[in-house]
Amino acid sequence: MKLIQCVPNFSEGCRTEVIGAIRGAMESAGTAKLIDCSWDCDHNRCVITMLGEPEAIRDAVIAGAAVAVKLIDLREHKGEHPRIGAIDVVPLTPVLNCTMEDCVALSYEIGRELAERFELPVYFYEQSARSERRKNLAIVRRGGFELLRESPLIGERAPDMGPNAAHPTAGATVVGARGPLIAYNVNLGTQDIAPAQEIAAKIRQIRDEGLGFVGVKALAINLRSRRLTQVSTNITRPECVSIYEVYKFVEKEAEAMGVEVAGSELIGAMREDAMIASFCNSIKLPLIPTSRILDTWIRSNLS
Amino acid sequence: MKLIQCVPNFSEGCRTEVIGAIRGAMESAGTAKLIDCSWDCDHNRCVITMLGEPEAIRDAVIAGAAVAVKLIDLREHKGEHPRIGAIDVVPLTPVLNCTMEDCVALSYEIGRELAERFELPVYFYEQSARSERRKNLAIVRRGGFELLRESPLIGERAPDMGPNAAHPTAGATVVGARGPLIAYNVNLGTQDIAPAQEIAAKIRQIRDEGLGFVGVKALAINLRSRRLTQVSTNITRPECVSIYEVYKFVEKEAEAMGVEVAGSELIGAMREDAMIASFCNSIKLPLIPTSRILDTWIRSNLS
Repeated sequence: MKLIQCVPNFSEGCRTEVIGAIRGAMESAGTAKLIDCSWDCDHNRCVITMLGEPEAIRDAVIAGAAVAVKLIDLREHKGEHPRIGAIDVVPLTPVLNCTMEDCVALSYEIGRELAERFELPVYFYEQSARSERRKNLAIVRRGGFELLRESPLIGERAPDMGPNAAHPTAGATVVGARGPLIAYNVNLGTQDIAPAQEIAAKIRQIRDEGLGFVGVKALAINLRSRRLTQVSTNITRPECVSIYEVYKFVEKEAEAMGVEVAGSELIGAMREDAMIASFCNSIKLPLIPTSRILDTWIRSNLS
Repeated sequence: MKLIQCVPNFSEGCRTEVIGAIRGAMESAGTAKLIDCSWDCDHNRCVITMLGEPEAIRDAVIAGAAVAVKLIDLREHKGEHPRIGAIDVVPLTPVLNCTMEDCVALSYEIGRELAERFELPVYFYEQSARSERRKNLAIVRRGGFELLRESPLIGERAPDMGPNAAHPTAGATVVGARGPLIAYNVNLGTQDIAPAQEIAAKIRQIRDEGLGFVGVKALAINLRSRRLTQVSTNITRPECVSIYEVYKFVEKEAEAMGVEVAGSELIGAMREDAMIASFCNSIKLPLIPTSRILDTWIRSNLS
């Protein structure tokens, strides 16, 4: 059985009835299973983690997209997180018995359906990108929905599939195959955005100078409703950087500025090896094999 | 299928050929599986983690004991860790489809066989104890092999099974059923034993005053061959105290004394929930369900 993980991000994080309708449509579409549904009103975004066979994932995404196109109007959408679409981004990751190529093929299939059914301009990113430039989600999304709708999508802005104009209410969608990524946020106990901005900038700088934090993306986000600020990260190379490493850096930098870490958040699911790496890292323990986790040993050996 | 975890501790941590012979005998005895074999020459002790059905566990323990009785002579044994026997302690823990009572019954069966076959005095501890006093391993083991062999084992020292005298070379054995326990050690970058002693005493004090560290046992150990010292702990209530909590306390106390933590060690296997608790604790993350670990979700739902 081929298993693919799909983590679509929808631009709705406040209206729980809309989130529920999207989630419900995806769960009812077929055999794909929902692993997690995380949302945040300040981000104004929800992240749904699904696992299933390629066709089941396709059906779930299309079902969720149909609801999102109907219920989300980006003209009225305000949020802290960058976005260009109601169905903002649809990442696909190989999990079991399948390859990155399987996910690339599925991304093209899903992209074609999204473009045809909903008249959405579709951009392919990461492993599905058709040009170097499009690999980077931040570049594809630059300017957000507001810039996207300003003028025809031609030349450098032309989508890979679909119409040459933003959908009036649902914008555009970015679809692509990528490796496992950990969406991990550290919340700071201050309403001043400066510390989060400074820490996020330091992480990016260390990464760009090749001094660490390989593949870590970092943004500062204002969590107004919780009176906090956030260093929001994506760990795109979990085999290189552990969650604890990111946490510890943010904590140390924040403390140096007299700011306390209020807590942290893991969005969606993570792989077991990433958790073991973080666990070992946090207590200076040499990496242990998964067989030392009794439950894992039992499930692997006695099923 | 009933599954029991057995973690016998043998008093040999230097001669790898002896450790190998014990381990090999246990693995060859039947269907019980070896999960881990940890040993340390300063402790002069090895800890073997086995998983299997009750009868298979019994056969493995008896097979390992036969080798240990033959190859270990406690008269020549020196080590940092308290011990009274070649087969020093045989803890049994229910893992799957079985109860503590099953483990208690198995402990009596194993105790009887050890006593009859090898003429070993056997004491039952923890859930298998036949008096309040015997519940505590430290009390049962007080004075070590040296005190044990001094005089007949009568009155308060009378074993629960077996002869009223220590085995001349293999001492006595403590057998019992208990809940899951995490053997976790933090190593300090100093040869001075005082900091480790002070930290271990503080942990015991906090525990005894009811201020935290519920069920945590702590000892200071000299790791001469590695030029380190160690705070050696048993976390007997992993649902109350996380590994990270123990690590962090030791680190903070050591730092206050100008001592660096050199690393830490996990002996044997641990349950997944204990790892998740430590992981979340280390990054101020609210406890996540096991379903958020993709591999666990897959193994639980698709097998």
